[in-house]
Amino acid sequence: MMADEPRPSRASAARLSLYLRCLEGWRRDGRQTASSRDLAAALGVGDAQVRKDLAYLGRLGRRGVGYRTDDLAAGIRSALGIDREWPTVLVGAGNLARALLRYRGFPERGFRLVGLFDADPRKVGQRVEGLDVFPMTELARRVRSSGADLGIVAVPSEAAQEVADALADAGVRGVLNFAPAVLRLPGRVAVVNVDLTIQLEQLAFQVQAGRDG
Amino acid sequence: MMADEPRPSRASAARLSLYLRCLEGWRRDGRQTASSRDLAAALGVGDAQVRKDLAYLGRLGRRGVGYRTDDLAAGIRSALGIDREWPTVLVGAGNLARALLRYRGFPERGFRLVGLFDADPRKVGQRVEGLDVFPMTELARRVRSSGADLGIVAVPSEAAQEVADALADAGVRGVLNFAPAVLRLPGRVAVVNVDLTIQLEQLAFQVQAGRDG
Repeated sequence: MMADEPRPSRASAARLSLYLRCLEGWRRDGRQTASSRDLAAALGVGDAQVRKDLAYLGRLGRRGVGYRTDDLAAGIRSALGIDREWPTVLVGAGNLARALLRYRGFPERGFRLVGLFDADPRKVGQRVEGLDVFPMTELARRVRSSGADLGIVAVPSEAAQEVADALADAGVRGVLNFAPAVLRLPGRVAVVNVDLTIQLEQLAFQVQAGRDG
Repeated sequence: MMADEPRPSRASAARLSLYLRCLEGWRRDGRQTASSRDLAAALGVGDAQVRKDLAYLGRLGRRGVGYRTDDLAAGIRSALGIDREWPTVLVGAGNLARALLRYRGFPERGFRLVGLFDADPRKVGQRVEGLDVFPMTELARRVRSSGADLGIVAVPSEAAQEVADALADAGVRGVLNFAPAVLRLPGRVAVVNVDLTIQLEQLAFQVQAGRDG
């Protein structure tokens, strides 16, 4: 996107990701066009909201006309910044790391895992899903040599802040945090938290409140 | 909560989970009181927003007075519905399941994993982190006998809808979905999606947009 174009809000960006999932599913089913109304129905949001979100994509956002699913998906990828490759390092070589490394969705979307690190000397030197486990002392050098922009924190909560600090010092610009801890990082480093207990708490809240999904 | 009390919005409920994380951290550090301003500073939100969110907790929400961290944490747990136990079943016995079963956060918060299921006959009968892997044909009976309210979908995306349908048919009222797929479920079943590629996409978006975390 050009710097002077309006940027989607975070809520819009989150919906753009969901529209992209729908479009990719439809594309696999052989469907070549889709309307804002189709997306609205699939996600359970209003048609006007979808049209507003898609307006960020610029000239693709022609109201009232069906979109080509391919073009719309490409426009969303561009708006989200995932039409490029994002070299990513992973800290913590446990079961979560194994699950993440086997997860096809990451390479499919351009998130290339270029380094795996652990503070435990017993894990260093092992090979996990095709990646060597390096010690934390190698982190800064390897982040720089690989050009990694993003870091994933997959360690227990008591180690999370230290790992996040090391990632920020090494120069990553974004941290995906799986530890149930609130990280304090400089403003230049974006953080997205994937606290699994929070997700389950929110599910419990919705079930208890008797809301539909 | 009483049925006639105002319920927190989903956005408020999400913040309540984050306040709870902060309060639990402070409690571990020996801190016995906290103010709405402390929570606002820790989370980077406005003081007025925090006070509005905490007002859902009823009489605990005394403005201008410091809260006892223990009381406030207990009030939040009650508002979120996590002051009880939630028996939960897990479908998909792969690496993600191993990571989830080893994750201390779930039992600590009352999410008791009571059953593990997989469609792969080679996995059925194995023991994973202390739980036996049962075939999908056992799901409905075991959901009923364990009183499971929640189900976790930890299978590849192409199997996710089928597994979610089986969970809904078995009677769970909430589904935590790790598959990168948009699930269609009856309105009586709440869904929270933990699509890890979406989280990474949102992080990439924030990094590209040059926003701070």
